[in-house]
Amino acid sequence: MRNALLLPDLRELISDGHAAAVREFLEDYPPARQAELIEDLPAGEAEAVLRLLEPRARAEIVSYLDLDHQLELVEKMTPVDAAALLRDMPHDDRADLVGRLDADRAELILRRMAQAERDDIRRLTEYEAGTAGSVMTTDYATVPPFVSVREAIDHLRKEAPDRETILTSFVVDHQRRLIGTISLQALILARPTARVEDVMQADPIRAHVEDDREEVARKIAQYDLLALPIVDPSEMLVGIVTHDDALDILREEQSEDLLRFGAVDYDAAEADDDPGEEGIMTAVKRRFGWLLLLFGGGAITGVVVNTFGGVSARYPGIKFETFIPLLIGTGGNAGSQTVGTVIRGLALGDVDPRRDFARVIAREALTGLCLGLVLGPLGFVFTWLVMGGTPAFSLVIALAILGICVWANGVGSMVPMVARLVKIDPAVVSAPLISTLVDATGLMIFYTVARLIHRYLLT
Amino acid sequence: MRNALLLPDLRELISDGHAAAVREFLEDYPPARQAELIEDLPAGEAEAVLRLLEPRARAEIVSYLDLDHQLELVEKMTPVDAAALLRDMPHDDRADLVGRLDADRAELILRRMAQAERDDIRRLTEYEAGTAGSVMTTDYATVPPFVSVREAIDHLRKEAPDRETILTSFVVDHQRRLIGTISLQALILARPTARVEDVMQADPIRAHVEDDREEVARKIAQYDLLALPIVDPSEMLVGIVTHDDALDILREEQSEDLLRFGAVDYDAAEADDDPGEEGIMTAVKRRFGWLLLLFGGGAITGVVVNTFGGVSARYPGIKFETFIPLLIGTGGNAGSQTVGTVIRGLALGDVDPRRDFARVIAREALTGLCLGLVLGPLGFVFTWLVMGGTPAFSLVIALAILGICVWANGVGSMVPMVARLVKIDPAVVSAPLISTLVDATGLMIFYTVARLIHRYLLT
Repeated sequence: MRNALLLPDLRELISDGHAAAVREFLEDYPPARQAELIEDLPAGEAEAVLRLLEPRARAEIVSYLDLDHQLELVEKMTPVDAAALLRDMPHDDRADLVGRLDADRAELILRRMAQAERDDIRRLTEYEAGTAGSVMTTDYATVPPFVSVREAIDHLRKEAPDRETILTSFVVDHQRRLIGTISLQALILARPTARVEDVMQADPIRAHVEDDREEVARKIAQYDLLALPIVDPSEMLVGIVTHDDALDILREEQSEDLLRFGAVDYDAAEADDDPGEEGIMTAVKRRFGWLLLLFGGGAITGVVVNTFGGVSARYPGIKFETFIPLLIGTGGNAGSQTVGTVIRGLALGDVDPRRDFARVIAREALTGLCLGLVLGPLGFVFTWLVMGGTPAFSLVIALAILGICVWANGVGSMVPMVARLVKIDPAVVSAPLISTLVDATGLMIFYTVARLIHRYLLT
Repeated sequence: MRNALLLPDLRELISDGHAAAVREFLEDYPPARQAELIEDLPAGEAEAVLRLLEPRARAEIVSYLDLDHQLELVEKMTPVDAAALLRDMPHDDRADLVGRLDADRAELILRRMAQAERDDIRRLTEYEAGTAGSVMTTDYATVPPFVSVREAIDHLRKEAPDRETILTSFVVDHQRRLIGTISLQALILARPTARVEDVMQADPIRAHVEDDREEVARKIAQYDLLALPIVDPSEMLVGIVTHDDALDILREEQSEDLLRFGAVDYDAAEADDDPGEEGIMTAVKRRFGWLLLLFGGGAITGVVVNTFGGVSARYPGIKFETFIPLLIGTGGNAGSQTVGTVIRGLALGDVDPRRDFARVIAREALTGLCLGLVLGPLGFVFTWLVMGGTPAFSLVIALAILGICVWANGVGSMVPMVARLVKIDPAVVSAPLISTLVDATGLMIFYTVARLIHRYLLT
């Protein structure tokens, strides 16, 4: 329990009905912490506590609750209360919440809000999932370029309660085009009579409203920004994405990569629920497509074994099938290692396929060669001494392993880079996909080596 | 090229020798952007440009260069110049840099620094890699609890140039114990005559110096912090970790998870180089251990095939080996999907093995059952119609696939949870590991089904 020590105290205060004491108790903690406490309360008590709080504080805490809790809460409220709550919530969070309500209910609530707020929510919910527009917020602070630093600070003091952040302010011209940013720190340090345009950061880093949200998060990480301004095609400022949202986006996107690498079809930007909370049927749906495709690959490998199986007659007394798991296992394992390394490089921007294609493949194939030069002889020893194979067949196994290691690393590095070149997310190139690709082709290497050794060594 | 448009302009200014123009040109961009431009210059020009800059600006830009560039630069400087540079750099970045210099060179440079600075660097380099201490910085701003808001702001104005951030200040008592935090935003909004202790956030979220750095980054994400205070065992404030460092840590740790999931042995906190830049021999070392272990697993699967192989005699005319790749492939793929899902849940904190152990396994096994109920019949059709198997053997394949799907999902969910319970990082449970674990056991299911069908249906 994350709040095992605090929760009983809070519940005692609630059951005693001391409104002021509950408020004071909560105020000692930051909003995210208060939200955790409230999530851990039984539903009835959680609502009672929220009702005790001052509207702005309530709205901020609600924005930290997980979306399911928020929904549950809003569905129990009257439309008037819900509208009041939405009014004070951060603009990105309330848009996400409204986007999850059913349309009739959302309409009822929106009708109770001022025109400007209603339009703001509608606009934010309309951006396509996964874009900068879908994650930005509109409650940012702007300052004109021609005011003094002192005036700007006074202005921000007044604006602060309605803004998600005043740590960075955005300087816009009379057409709302973005011309600069200025941090609160810079304002505090500047001469009070200086003009904002003389102390602002001109031509700031920005993103476009249609940009990929992962791109946005990466920019924030790269330039250590507190907030990244989002502009529309005419360079008008339409929103901002804050550093804490960037953290959430990166966590979601990177955990998406892990799922995809395991061959689960998942899009963090589209998914409503956490994969752990979804119904079994959703889980089946996410996995079935890949599993079916890979099943087809396995069937093809079976056909390969069937087709080339005649080769085994040339090695009397040796059961080829004993070695199939070892050979395809080694190929799959080496390929998985490589694909993981290359996908990571692509995700972090260290590998650019247009620049590095040949270099990366050569590097990986060489790594495979080194690994094969150790595993091959081990395969020889295992086949000869443990499984009682002939020296010639043991040599077949050793050479096949060597070839498979080189081949698997080559395929494992090439496929994700090709995916990126043809604009497919390389993260869909999963470990199972590479394993399956290498299964059939790896066995062909094996059968070919077996044939060649038979032809040139044994006859 | 990220700076294709700017770079020629900058180089022209440099070759013209206009120091002031170069400075002005660069000052238009944020430090991270300036660092990119400088990284893209030829080595000689980069140094020349840095020499033109004001010391503090230079130190900040250098802190944004990648570590290899930093090293190259410092190795060419005189110890006196290097000491001057380090004096102005963020404390965490300079400690990382000194940690990478060779010991003699570091000693030469440190000897030119003031005692306090030298001790600070030594202390920071001594924390074990991967701990909060190893990523924290010591250039944070503190304020006493009893001063007024106005005095605090005046104090911060003076401190700002030497501090990495004044966005959050840390309130400490006379023994330097952490008693609160206060944001610059809160100071600006507070009444100037209020006392700091009355407006600060008391009892703030904190981390301990020995905590895992991933834990630290996760706290910053969870509570939307700008900076997390780090305390020693006696609750004395010893450093802070900022939001931008949290982003970097999460990116590194999560890309580490991807590598480990592909069975590459990698520790982001320990690694000096990016895996894409490492020598082939390092790559081989990172992969060989797992590959060898999994090779052993493949060999064991071979022994299983050899041992149970006699069962095939009861199905005359059917080549068992044709179906081995399909069976072990399906097990490996289903297992990889599950292990990816469960590792993700564990990493995000959605799955707690002590609470969810049975529930998660049941859920995954049920998902496997659903998938097997579709793939099994497909296997029947493939075996009967495509490969010309008997109805009885086709039934064997169908039931084996069903059993393997349930089994693979069970194993794939159990193993990472057990790893967490015995305090092993679940991310070391890779897709290839689960595939290999399921290979031998999956085939045992197949042979057992074949025996049972033969005994009860065919005789």
